[in-house]
Amino acid sequence: MTDRTIKHEEMPEKYGLRGGRWLTSSIVCDEVDPLCHPLGARNKVVIAPGIVTGTSAPTSARLSVGGKSPLTGTIKESNSGAKFSQQIARLGIRAIVVEGQPKEEGSFWTLELDKNGSKLVPTPSNWIGKGLYETVPLLYRKYGGNLGLVAIGAAGEMKMAMAGVSFNDIKGRPSRYAGRGGLGAVLGSKGLKFIVADDTGAPEVEVANKNLFESGRKKLTDALLTHAITKPKGALNAYGTAVLINIINEAGGLPTRNFSNGTFEGATKIAGEAIFDGNKRRLGKELYNHACSPGCIIQCSNTWHKHDGAEHTSCIEYESDWALGANCGIDDLDVIAELNQLCNDYGVDTIEAGGTLAVAMEGGVAKFGDGKKAIELMHEIGRGTPLGRILGSGATVTGKVYGVARVPSVKGQNMPAYEPREIKGIGVTYATSTMGADHTAGYTIAPEILSVGGKLDPLTFEKKGELSRNFQATTAFIDSSGHCLFIAFAILDIASGFEGMVEECNGVLGTSWTGDDVTRIGQEILRMERRFNEAAGFTKAHDRLPEFMKYEKLPPHNTVFDVPDEVLDSVYAF
Amino acid sequence: MTDRTIKHEEMPEKYGLRGGRWLTSSIVCDEVDPLCHPLGARNKVVIAPGIVTGTSAPTSARLSVGGKSPLTGTIKESNSGAKFSQQIARLGIRAIVVEGQPKEEGSFWTLELDKNGSKLVPTPSNWIGKGLYETVPLLYRKYGGNLGLVAIGAAGEMKMAMAGVSFNDIKGRPSRYAGRGGLGAVLGSKGLKFIVADDTGAPEVEVANKNLFESGRKKLTDALLTHAITKPKGALNAYGTAVLINIINEAGGLPTRNFSNGTFEGATKIAGEAIFDGNKRRLGKELYNHACSPGCIIQCSNTWHKHDGAEHTSCIEYESDWALGANCGIDDLDVIAELNQLCNDYGVDTIEAGGTLAVAMEGGVAKFGDGKKAIELMHEIGRGTPLGRILGSGATVTGKVYGVARVPSVKGQNMPAYEPREIKGIGVTYATSTMGADHTAGYTIAPEILSVGGKLDPLTFEKKGELSRNFQATTAFIDSSGHCLFIAFAILDIASGFEGMVEECNGVLGTSWTGDDVTRIGQEILRMERRFNEAAGFTKAHDRLPEFMKYEKLPPHNTVFDVPDEVLDSVYAF
Repeated sequence: MTDRTIKHEEMPEKYGLRGGRWLTSSIVCDEVDPLCHPLGARNKVVIAPGIVTGTSAPTSARLSVGGKSPLTGTIKESNSGAKFSQQIARLGIRAIVVEGQPKEEGSFWTLELDKNGSKLVPTPSNWIGKGLYETVPLLYRKYGGNLGLVAIGAAGEMKMAMAGVSFNDIKGRPSRYAGRGGLGAVLGSKGLKFIVADDTGAPEVEVANKNLFESGRKKLTDALLTHAITKPKGALNAYGTAVLINIINEAGGLPTRNFSNGTFEGATKIAGEAIFDGNKRRLGKELYNHACSPGCIIQCSNTWHKHDGAEHTSCIEYESDWALGANCGIDDLDVIAELNQLCNDYGVDTIEAGGTLAVAMEGGVAKFGDGKKAIELMHEIGRGTPLGRILGSGATVTGKVYGVARVPSVKGQNMPAYEPREIKGIGVTYATSTMGADHTAGYTIAPEILSVGGKLDPLTFEKKGELSRNFQATTAFIDSSGHCLFIAFAILDIASGFEGMVEECNGVLGTSWTGDDVTRIGQEILRMERRFNEAAGFTKAHDRLPEFMKYEKLPPHNTVFDVPDEVLDSVYAF
Repeated sequence: MTDRTIKHEEMPEKYGLRGGRWLTSSIVCDEVDPLCHPLGARNKVVIAPGIVTGTSAPTSARLSVGGKSPLTGTIKESNSGAKFSQQIARLGIRAIVVEGQPKEEGSFWTLELDKNGSKLVPTPSNWIGKGLYETVPLLYRKYGGNLGLVAIGAAGEMKMAMAGVSFNDIKGRPSRYAGRGGLGAVLGSKGLKFIVADDTGAPEVEVANKNLFESGRKKLTDALLTHAITKPKGALNAYGTAVLINIINEAGGLPTRNFSNGTFEGATKIAGEAIFDGNKRRLGKELYNHACSPGCIIQCSNTWHKHDGAEHTSCIEYESDWALGANCGIDDLDVIAELNQLCNDYGVDTIEAGGTLAVAMEGGVAKFGDGKKAIELMHEIGRGTPLGRILGSGATVTGKVYGVARVPSVKGQNMPAYEPREIKGIGVTYATSTMGADHTAGYTIAPEILSVGGKLDPLTFEKKGELSRNFQATTAFIDSSGHCLFIAFAILDIASGFEGMVEECNGVLGTSWTGDDVTRIGQEILRMERRFNEAAGFTKAHDRLPEFMKYEKLPPHNTVFDVPDEVLDSVYAF
């Protein structure tokens, strides 16, 4: 981006088998100085589709966005489902590496990709500072209906550390996000506003062993269509991820009012069931969820409608619902929907946004439960006022600015929707993940709460080091395969589903990986990311939860985070 | 402060010989969890006079304030000259340890100390939020003319990370600061607004060997009265520390406009000579400087006067002059004086304040050189507006909030008034000091620029690791002795002066330390502080200057910071 040139390079042989997170983290580790400034010219943004992305593998239109995070200072991989991922895979693009930085600030560019090649063109200056729901339709008008899109919103343009990277969903909404870690700000610092792809006329993704791939595809598909969580009209398809609101609330692990309680009195009003029922009431019919990206058979993305039946927002994920709802003491779905929509429009991570609003509320900027004020605060972010810039910098900076000692973050990233004092395993993941506090890095909620992949007491820390380690490694592999992490529900319980995932990869690559290779590759990815973080100055001292969780008892069960440091330090002892 | 109780304890035997920094760092290391939140109930503030403080030793009314810093996250010792230090020494108080935290925010207390004991009383609520130049006269009215004072201003009340700890000078101005590292915010988080002392009727400080002490006192006094820098009507007494403006500017090492140039075209207009001449013009007579605290024979504190001869501010130190002047592109002494006065009034570190204004200017908040806007921004800090809270959080946070990659800080603390690309040794100190970027931690400027204590080329890095190490160790000892660091100019060049300092300590304590013990004790202090920082998560990766200084050439000599990492890592290899 320094001189707006594009270079096409052959895939280096050493990266031959790599895709998704494996590839983005490899390139970041090889090419980015761990001590570089995240918003400086020497950071890079790497975008890579997964190994099977672009094929007919179910629920596999995922990609990874990697770089050094301005939010955490660590390496970062943020993952999203996106039409764009399939399109670049079919265009034969294994990774896009965005480098350098224009000398002058404030000019923005659009990268165009199609079967004829690539081009960088200026983004119209009157599109800058606008909401994505205003500009993305203009892109559709210009590039047509087969648009695959990467975008940053106003927050990314302003280099705010909570800015995510946006992708269009199957209905053209800029609603899917590689949200966490502020990689939208890194794109903003490089002046890259949009990447538009069109795969018309592109060849199919090469598959080395079609029979093996087909066998795997069928096994995984069967598992997904069978498991209670992932099957059609199952938990996710009916209620979306927000089905977790009631479940986690009943467990006493739903962080409420900036992690000061584990239950929220308004939980049932904002739960996935309430979204389903509310839509039914307002639309006069039952509405099941839709896929975020082509080829997904789980189809967990919901849509929330206004009183008059008009669409309000899509999608209200569990973590967004919680962050903008329970964690802010807000129990009104219409308010949560509006906050969610503003996050998508301005281009920020919903989890960091809700966590930040809650820390700001704790610091006296607003009252918990004040939805009107919360909406105003989101607009401050979009406008980039001083207050908006504070909030846009995330919960940790907001806590510093307002002198708040109760900031529930690890490595600068706000915790997601699971209370680690009540569910110890997820606390182990928050503490030790290479990404900062991140539930998707090792989703121990599966056995601790959902009885998926076994059953473990959430309140004890026995076996939680090993559990988190295994989950983090397997997740690193799934994030590289191109599948959505939600296949984990099915493949943890159904052995043939797991086989199917591995066979799909072997089919595409011509490898003969087994389950052991999944662990081996996952651990290799983690080790590499960990080395980057160590060189960036992270130590075991950063693999800890914030002090207050060690001393402050969480109602209703009055638990503290009592996992010994040795357990935390055991996670990366491999 | 949790329940507003006071406990008097005997000095533990292990701390018997310790004072100043040696004692504050010892107590912090022994009692404060390195992973605690700096603004939480488990951090502590320790205030301790030096070993010879309260005696007749020259220039020895210093004290140390210690704790975990909200600005850097490291251990912190911040040092000031203050009447208060002598008073508590005479009251037999070796250290004040402020612990705990009121449950409810916003109530402030005053600690009263005199020969009859100590008492915590509420601070009138209508004194909160006011400038120190308004409230301190009220304290004098209440407590009388012999008041020794510790205070925090509005910034400390609001727990801003650039809030310093203020002390009254010999004329009653709240103008002396243990400024760096935000320990004022820690006092604010504990609800301690003032400490007032009166040593009327207190005994003299015990001196174990009066003859030896007297011999040392005479040697050190002679050295200070002889050396060109420290003698009466010498450089410091005539022009104050601001005598350095022209010297450092001529060397090309005066950081200008947020460290984007090493010379400032307006340097002569803001130099110490200009202050001297300006005062002469406005007062109609020559004005030499005064002592900041009783018993100082260097007397380097200047006063700046308005056109009508009325006092504007005291004191404009070199670093304040630079930070609020050259570094912001401001060349008007009246503007600098006003900014300086506002720093003192609101209770913030002038170095961090100027550094922050410059980063904000780089981020587009104001134009370099716009003094009017700079004054407005200082008032934003005092009022605690959102913008003021950003700025009050210091340069590093301000850089994060405005997405500025050029932030000249180390470990979260903005660099002082010496360009490390031009003067490599001071860069080694910035990088490796246990305190974050801090010139006073190991003032290599002496041999690199001033030809004091030898003469070394500022532009080369040879011997600079060893130089910084030796200076950091000796400084840690001087900071513990109770002497002002400025005695270093004399004792580096005059051997008997150095002997005198050691003899004074031996006289007070009954020890028989030699020069070797100075190094040994200094290194012991550094090692202890370093261990704290390591446990807080700091590694060699934090002993680095910001990335841009490695790549961006500094005019006029087009130098980069090229000191190899091995040299930086050699500093603490002892």
